[in-house]
Amino acid sequence: MKKRYDIAIIGSGPAGLAAAINAKIRNKSIVIFGNKDLSNKLIKAPKVDNYLGLYNLKGAELKEYFQRHIDYMNIKINYEKVNTIYAMGEYFAIMVNEKNYEAKSIILATGMEYNKSIKGEEELLGKGVGYCATCDAPLYRDKIVTIIGYNKEAEEEANYVSELAKKLYYIPMYNEKYNLNLSIELLQDKPVEIQGENKVEKIILKNQEIATDGVFVLKDSVAPSQLIPGIEVENNHIKVNRNMETNLKGCFAAGDCTGKPYQYMKSVGEGQVAALSAVKYLDEIK
Amino acid sequence: MKKRYDIAIIGSGPAGLAAAINAKIRNKSIVIFGNKDLSNKLIKAPKVDNYLGLYNLKGAELKEYFQRHIDYMNIKINYEKVNTIYAMGEYFAIMVNEKNYEAKSIILATGMEYNKSIKGEEELLGKGVGYCATCDAPLYRDKIVTIIGYNKEAEEEANYVSELAKKLYYIPMYNEKYNLNLSIELLQDKPVEIQGENKVEKIILKNQEIATDGVFVLKDSVAPSQLIPGIEVENNHIKVNRNMETNLKGCFAAGDCTGKPYQYMKSVGEGQVAALSAVKYLDEIK
Repeated sequence: MKKRYDIAIIGSGPAGLAAAINAKIRNKSIVIFGNKDLSNKLIKAPKVDNYLGLYNLKGAELKEYFQRHIDYMNIKINYEKVNTIYAMGEYFAIMVNEKNYEAKSIILATGMEYNKSIKGEEELLGKGVGYCATCDAPLYRDKIVTIIGYNKEAEEEANYVSELAKKLYYIPMYNEKYNLNLSIELLQDKPVEIQGENKVEKIILKNQEIATDGVFVLKDSVAPSQLIPGIEVENNHIKVNRNMETNLKGCFAAGDCTGKPYQYMKSVGEGQVAALSAVKYLDEIK
Repeated sequence: MKKRYDIAIIGSGPAGLAAAINAKIRNKSIVIFGNKDLSNKLIKAPKVDNYLGLYNLKGAELKEYFQRHIDYMNIKINYEKVNTIYAMGEYFAIMVNEKNYEAKSIILATGMEYNKSIKGEEELLGKGVGYCATCDAPLYRDKIVTIIGYNKEAEEEANYVSELAKKLYYIPMYNEKYNLNLSIELLQDKPVEIQGENKVEKIILKNQEIATDGVFVLKDSVAPSQLIPGIEVENNHIKVNRNMETNLKGCFAAGDCTGKPYQYMKSVGEGQVAALSAVKYLDEIK
């Protein structure tokens, strides 16, 4: 029988980690999805002075404190990318690229995308626009694919898809050295609009337009309403009460995804409350 | 003219300190009322493992991290005891024993008394029952006074009052070595009820009853509704929304006093949010 975790935590920023340590202390089985840097936002912070007890640190140094803490508690982060979560009644099904996981409760700690969606992105989502290139790659065999990448991890997806696609354009939304297959055409241009009648036909960039069959927008996190169908969102944030409960039974949220201020202590506090609320929920459904 | 602070913070536990560092970073003038141990609850914690970034510590060690942080930010704690806060419209008046302070906004981070009030305590408050013995001492010259002390600091108040009163009974609610004037009669007994028609007449203990003119209950914190008249309380906690606003304009709250779970990260997160909400409020009234 498939292992069913007590709690699945989506996100390894301060909120997700705070939830993880509290759930672990309460002897719950957890799976936490995140990335090697824990939080792309945290590691870029030039200086953090307002995390009580730890001061005058670079974000990358604070991240090391967090890493040592989860190592001490033997919490391992799963680097797979969650595409969608379905509420199945008794449990949640967590779809990742090649397999799926089950958990009795969910804590969403997905952070907040600061960049707005591109014009046409939402309208054409599922009609040629997608958020997981490797998942949908088979659909684009011998077709033209454009990948808009918000982080270096997107390059791996681009390299993978480039082996199937007829042509792959890569539009980086960051400035770093790129590690891309030679067959990929790098476009250092700004996306303006994705166009098409019933499916994606082209993408308009600031300085050119290109015909394409599919556009993948690879961000740090996807919108909550895409991630978990049926979740209630208010002003672009997941709606929660003071117990960090969402409108979906057994599903909690914490950190930037629940609203401003976007701050580390606010996030860890909410992560803790979400974990304790999840523990209470698990006791009730037992 | 009297100095009017931007923000007065009541309490020096994790919530109050988190509020203080954030307010200071935002260049607000602050006054913070607390005690030398920062938090009586924190220093007694045998082990803390769930404060993200700092693990395997005694509460007293975590307190040292907090102390170094506020020292680094040059935040000095005021050890005076706040009796009452009045909302004056334009500002708040903060009454301490012998003087008063003014602030444009308030953050309540008073923690939570775990002990229930004694039968008769609330009914006879102001009719012989009080929370600040040194404040009201002159009223009890040559009378019989009973002090119920929840912490060692209460002993100092008892010693002071014993010099005026005809007789002073001291009932400690903790087990430690007591440092009391010889004239004080120590009663190691459990208070059951304070009785009197229109004013305090006697106190019933588990094993005896004694006639007394006044009873002082000296706790770590007084009930919010006593501290700041008009504040809305729900299930014994200060009612706040997600921005940590109370029902009183310009008055915010954070930490245990706003409700469960009673946890450090929850408190620091709320302290941070309360400070940022207060900053926003100050910008609006400018």
